[in-house]
Amino acid sequence: MANLSVLSVILRQRRQKLAELIDFPAVLWSGGSNSRNFPANTFPFRANSHFLYFAGIPLQNAAIRLQGGNLQLFIDDPKPSSALWHGETPSREEIAAKIGADDARPMAELNDFIENVATVPVQDAATWTQQSQLLDRWILPKNQLEGIDLDLAKAIISLRIIHDEMALAELRKAAVVSVEAHQAGMAATRKAKLEAEVRAAMEAVIMGQNMTTAYTSIVTVHGEILHNGHYYHSLQPGDLLLADVGAETESGWAADITRTWPVSGKFSPTQRDIYDLVLAAHDACIENIFPGVEYGDIHLIAAMVIAEGLVDLGILRGKPEDLVKMDLHALFFPHGIGHLLGLDVHDMEDLGDLAGYEEGRKRSDRFGLSYLRLNRSLKPGMLVTIEPGFYQVPAILNNPKTRDQYQYLVNWERLEQFADVRGIRIENDVLVTESGSEVLTAALPTQAEEIENLV
Amino acid sequence: MANLSVLSVILRQRRQKLAELIDFPAVLWSGGSNSRNFPANTFPFRANSHFLYFAGIPLQNAAIRLQGGNLQLFIDDPKPSSALWHGETPSREEIAAKIGADDARPMAELNDFIENVATVPVQDAATWTQQSQLLDRWILPKNQLEGIDLDLAKAIISLRIIHDEMALAELRKAAVVSVEAHQAGMAATRKAKLEAEVRAAMEAVIMGQNMTTAYTSIVTVHGEILHNGHYYHSLQPGDLLLADVGAETESGWAADITRTWPVSGKFSPTQRDIYDLVLAAHDACIENIFPGVEYGDIHLIAAMVIAEGLVDLGILRGKPEDLVKMDLHALFFPHGIGHLLGLDVHDMEDLGDLAGYEEGRKRSDRFGLSYLRLNRSLKPGMLVTIEPGFYQVPAILNNPKTRDQYQYLVNWERLEQFADVRGIRIENDVLVTESGSEVLTAALPTQAEEIENLV
Repeated sequence: MANLSVLSVILRQRRQKLAELIDFPAVLWSGGSNSRNFPANTFPFRANSHFLYFAGIPLQNAAIRLQGGNLQLFIDDPKPSSALWHGETPSREEIAAKIGADDARPMAELNDFIENVATVPVQDAATWTQQSQLLDRWILPKNQLEGIDLDLAKAIISLRIIHDEMALAELRKAAVVSVEAHQAGMAATRKAKLEAEVRAAMEAVIMGQNMTTAYTSIVTVHGEILHNGHYYHSLQPGDLLLADVGAETESGWAADITRTWPVSGKFSPTQRDIYDLVLAAHDACIENIFPGVEYGDIHLIAAMVIAEGLVDLGILRGKPEDLVKMDLHALFFPHGIGHLLGLDVHDMEDLGDLAGYEEGRKRSDRFGLSYLRLNRSLKPGMLVTIEPGFYQVPAILNNPKTRDQYQYLVNWERLEQFADVRGIRIENDVLVTESGSEVLTAALPTQAEEIENLV
Repeated sequence: MANLSVLSVILRQRRQKLAELIDFPAVLWSGGSNSRNFPANTFPFRANSHFLYFAGIPLQNAAIRLQGGNLQLFIDDPKPSSALWHGETPSREEIAAKIGADDARPMAELNDFIENVATVPVQDAATWTQQSQLLDRWILPKNQLEGIDLDLAKAIISLRIIHDEMALAELRKAAVVSVEAHQAGMAATRKAKLEAEVRAAMEAVIMGQNMTTAYTSIVTVHGEILHNGHYYHSLQPGDLLLADVGAETESGWAADITRTWPVSGKFSPTQRDIYDLVLAAHDACIENIFPGVEYGDIHLIAAMVIAEGLVDLGILRGKPEDLVKMDLHALFFPHGIGHLLGLDVHDMEDLGDLAGYEEGRKRSDRFGLSYLRLNRSLKPGMLVTIEPGFYQVPAILNNPKTRDQYQYLVNWERLEQFADVRGIRIENDVLVTESGSEVLTAALPTQAEEIENLV
């Protein structure tokens, strides 16, 4: 047993836990790479996360079969001619040894081991076509899972949702590098003329440590566009720059951090007022994270702090409790307080709401709650993001219906004085512990003065 | 006519030229984005290059129908709810005006305009499935084109292979930024500990100007692995670093540059000998580029210069002409001298060898020639890469068969003295002009001393 790697030991634990939950075999595919207009020019490969969880390394065009705690690996050996173009690559046997597989075979033999197996679909069409053909039923990413596939998904969720030691070690690595990226972004801002330059400075930190971004970075002076994936705007001294950038380790574990900082290095008084309000919401959420607490209640804490703060600032009129019930906070905070984080930045979102919503729960119809991606009772080992924000979204606030409906509850004239606050978000990655929580991304400051000092 | 944009005028010229070549309608699809494990987390979108050539901008999930010089645009308007997440995006009518479309309709109406249309397949499976269903025949990227689809492909090739003014303007932009990226890579090398850090410094220059890389960067001290897409090696003072990195403009036009530089800032005498030899091959190729010259002959010039040089250095024994005929040069230069460059880094390689090989020509069976991607008579307006190299590929040189077969023609003992030269390549982008050629990437030095000064 002396030469068993940590990787192979942890992977064995994971599949033994799975074996306690299901009594049928499962096959998980890794997926293949997608082409960028011609076949030899590919996008970077990203292995399926369920595969990664049990196989540990991002193998391409591979499958694993899990049964009773055993792991069979299916992968083809590299072609001899590939040595010229790609150098020496590990053989099937070497890979099998590394991940502690009990058996290893060429891909073509998978056909002999598919009786009564469950699976979950992989996103790339070549792979889900292969899954469907081999299992002789449709395995489509857009379909609702059924039968043993659904049972498998639920079993995987119950494992992946509570992070083990190896997962946490990787998640901490991703957090460290993401913190460095944000520091580099702040430091690059004063000399930068374009959003793109700050983004480049941040992603260079991630790339320079052989990681990738876990999702399309948001680096923008228009933070009110929630998923802004463009970087064309020039930076003006009065702007706030919102950066939502996270790294992903080689084995796929993600971080997800947002900070908002003044391009000039100094918040204006109005920017500072709103920044401190968003930070108060952020801090109140984290202070209230304990095992057993409902994540939906954490969302409502943020809503309440924001409503109270906006009343104090004269932007909203009324009792904060009433305003939250009427979703007035959601005019300025139109998204959920966060989501699960793990191998995916919205962890297990490929399974729809199966992971995010506790069994029997469904998305709310309320504008202020419908965007909530996570609705579960918190448990030690869960990793969630906490990311309150304040945005002046033209599509919401300039809508004549909104203006009419809330002509008294919103002090629109007062709001105009905050025109230099288009979008602020503060986001950290928070691990639920036995005694409360631990912020994995705490090395990056949140206090306004500390942020100003880093720009 | 005063407010017609340059873009719309050039696009009209392109489709009028197409109309002179085909008498049937064509529909070109742009393609969609691929998911990175869950639907909302996508890889960057890359529009199909044929679509881009005639539509000018990278629209997602769109199609254009070309007939008799007219352009019909098919694209859906953004959903109202997308303003929250993605901000205000241009409407169908605004896009149609920008690209000078004669007509614009929702995607669903494409169904009414597909009689007898030709097309070429897009790489992503969702799109080629849609193409196949709508046209009621298989449009598969891996299939050989037939009938009017083949005629369309040939017509497009005859246009895209000779670059017009707007194409050249874009290609020059990509070249400028790629040159800057290489300069940044050289400047970052001395302080860098890992290949990844140099790669990050180079790609940050590209990203900082809102461009992307045109292909997976190669930045490695193991240049003998021709398509090395990893960046894990540490940099040692005696190493050569080979960087093959090129930018792509927003509308998809590519550059493709390779330089090889000493990590220490100073080539060793053996590295310098081989570097100068590769440079001599590079220079000889470019000096011989004129309209009417066969690109295959340019390849043979490189082979001859390399064979001569290796004889002079005592690595090969025999007459250079005989050595080239026996493919001895290909032991060290096992790839073609270059390829077409345009909207794709291997331009139009999605059409197999249709673009690279003149009608009636086929790939050679000879080891030294089979990798040649381009086999045409050169014409003004063609853009090609010139990229000779020298590599000590273990899979080739340590093969007992090679050792046995060439025990006399290769001086293996002498070769051992060049152990610190694992891989060198020098690559520039060369435009064929009426009077000879113009190197679009000439701003980046090739001379050894100049390279040393930049490190």
